[in-house]
Amino acid sequence: MSAADQDPEPVDEFDWIQRCLVPLADAPEALGLLDDAAVVPSRPGYDLVITKDAIVEGVHFLPGDPMESVAGKLIRVNLSDLAAKGAEPYGYVLATAWPRAMGWPAREAFARGLAADQAQFGLRLLGGDTVSTPGPFTASLTALGWVPMGRMVKRSGAQAGDIVLVSGTIGDGYLGLQAAQGGLLDLPKEDRAFLAARYRTPQPRVGLGDALRASATAAADVSDGLIADAGRIAIASGLRIELDLEKTPLSPAGRRWLKRQGDQDTGLMALASGGDDYEVICTVSPQEADALQGAGERLGLPLTPIGSVSAGQGVLTRLNGRLVSAGRGGYRHG
Amino acid sequence: MSAADQDPEPVDEFDWIQRCLVPLADAPEALGLLDDAAVVPSRPGYDLVITKDAIVEGVHFLPGDPMESVAGKLIRVNLSDLAAKGAEPYGYVLATAWPRAMGWPAREAFARGLAADQAQFGLRLLGGDTVSTPGPFTASLTALGWVPMGRMVKRSGAQAGDIVLVSGTIGDGYLGLQAAQGGLLDLPKEDRAFLAARYRTPQPRVGLGDALRASATAAADVSDGLIADAGRIAIASGLRIELDLEKTPLSPAGRRWLKRQGDQDTGLMALASGGDDYEVICTVSPQEADALQGAGERLGLPLTPIGSVSAGQGVLTRLNGRLVSAGRGGYRHG
Repeated sequence: MSAADQDPEPVDEFDWIQRCLVPLADAPEALGLLDDAAVVPSRPGYDLVITKDAIVEGVHFLPGDPMESVAGKLIRVNLSDLAAKGAEPYGYVLATAWPRAMGWPAREAFARGLAADQAQFGLRLLGGDTVSTPGPFTASLTALGWVPMGRMVKRSGAQAGDIVLVSGTIGDGYLGLQAAQGGLLDLPKEDRAFLAARYRTPQPRVGLGDALRASATAAADVSDGLIADAGRIAIASGLRIELDLEKTPLSPAGRRWLKRQGDQDTGLMALASGGDDYEVICTVSPQEADALQGAGERLGLPLTPIGSVSAGQGVLTRLNGRLVSAGRGGYRHG
Repeated sequence: MSAADQDPEPVDEFDWIQRCLVPLADAPEALGLLDDAAVVPSRPGYDLVITKDAIVEGVHFLPGDPMESVAGKLIRVNLSDLAAKGAEPYGYVLATAWPRAMGWPAREAFARGLAADQAQFGLRLLGGDTVSTPGPFTASLTALGWVPMGRMVKRSGAQAGDIVLVSGTIGDGYLGLQAAQGGLLDLPKEDRAFLAARYRTPQPRVGLGDALRASATAAADVSDGLIADAGRIAIASGLRIELDLEKTPLSPAGRRWLKRQGDQDTGLMALASGGDDYEVICTVSPQEADALQGAGERLGLPLTPIGSVSAGQGVLTRLNGRLVSAGRGGYRHG
């Protein structure tokens, strides 16, 4: 209803659905996007895992970011949740709110991003809604995945004595946002490109699912910061998590950035508090840790021990043996 | 990230979830909103019906509309889809994007609206996401419902020779938007209040589910206009729908409005093309029509015959026997 100016070429929502979305919805459950709803048959012996994340231009991605990568990020932040639950990605429903200034090129780029990640992760578009907005581009995605009945890996299952593992490297999302905004100019160009790509195109750890279900007692994805997401496992499990921050796994680019910081403690705390890593943090009994780490190695994805679970509450952060304060702990998306 | 001015009292998203949403998520599937995802056990013998609608302030509701009714409308437009599919409402995941200018009172009112409709329709909040936005309030809801396996009522099942029925009354949403905007001042105050309430608080026809599954060959909800939604059944079924527009069921307020129009044809066409009615349009064999209408009567919800299905394509609109053009047919949400 709001009239925007400088309309590149008005997009009729019906045409956009036909041209860009129907080709993505060839699964029978989607009914060709011709119906009011999708219909998902129950899968005996399995539970459906459901997660939903929303993104807003200027809050969760940068105005001007390529719309392919915006679509990819939207899919991947949701798949990251499924990955941490040990779920097998299945499908998604999508709502998009488009400003008038985004014409066909933006729509088509967004659909290309969806198509690429559908193929990569074995997803199908099931349905959704398309609306216009006088505000910034906004989208939300509800992702569905399957887990064997009763086997979803929860945040609440940690046990005292467990080891805390984290996949991949931490802090790249925090640095990647700065790199994507044109910052970190004292880093080599390749590092900035690597970090910006880590920010724009998370790698959901869906390959870990079987191993997490087999071995982990609890897991979460690292979206709001290592310390904050460790804290959520601690809260849900009613236990304390102690983190040895010097063990935080860093990428080569992250290490080079840290080396340039005057205060190493503050730098490391920033990396462990920043968001957008989309790694998996999990807890595992000492007996099972080798099996889980071995599974990670076979995927080319190291799982690094960074702490332990004990009686108590909250997150206790140590740096080379000294207690350090994590404040309220971790970045929060707006 | 965008700084808004005149912040009434900043709302911390974590506090909002704890105070307002966790009390709505007491079903075990929601895991107290403490996890990355909800987990829905398969229900043997049933399919899960999934629909998603998004709303934007200034596009789908009026700035200044009470946030209780905004929440209610968001739930109800989705339930209307489930109703037309013959599905039993089950639960929902919710994404909300809040401008800073909406403080605690708006948040609490929105949650009250959710709570009221959860109770009325037997729904549970399963999870979701809360973000901030520099734009207008935006929300999307993914609603889940159950139908006996293979029994979802689709748009594609209409048969040549079927009768077309529509529930309730048509055009109230179209008039209600005008009334809610302060228009229609030549109508009695009670009519304007009735119509505005029809616009703000749709009545999803969930009670019809069993009868639709038992008797209807196809169904859709009337959200984008009677003619447009009839057209979608026609397209999905590969048949033609003929509508006798003079049979369109009107509310007393709608009839009084129509009587005031100079050109009755144009007026009636506007009512049959306007959106936001959230009634059910369905097709049924002549043999089953009585049973379906009887079920409607027992619910106090008349189902009015307004046309028929035949070979061909598209929607053919007649008014007292004369063919009239419906243009591209029907209102579309922005």
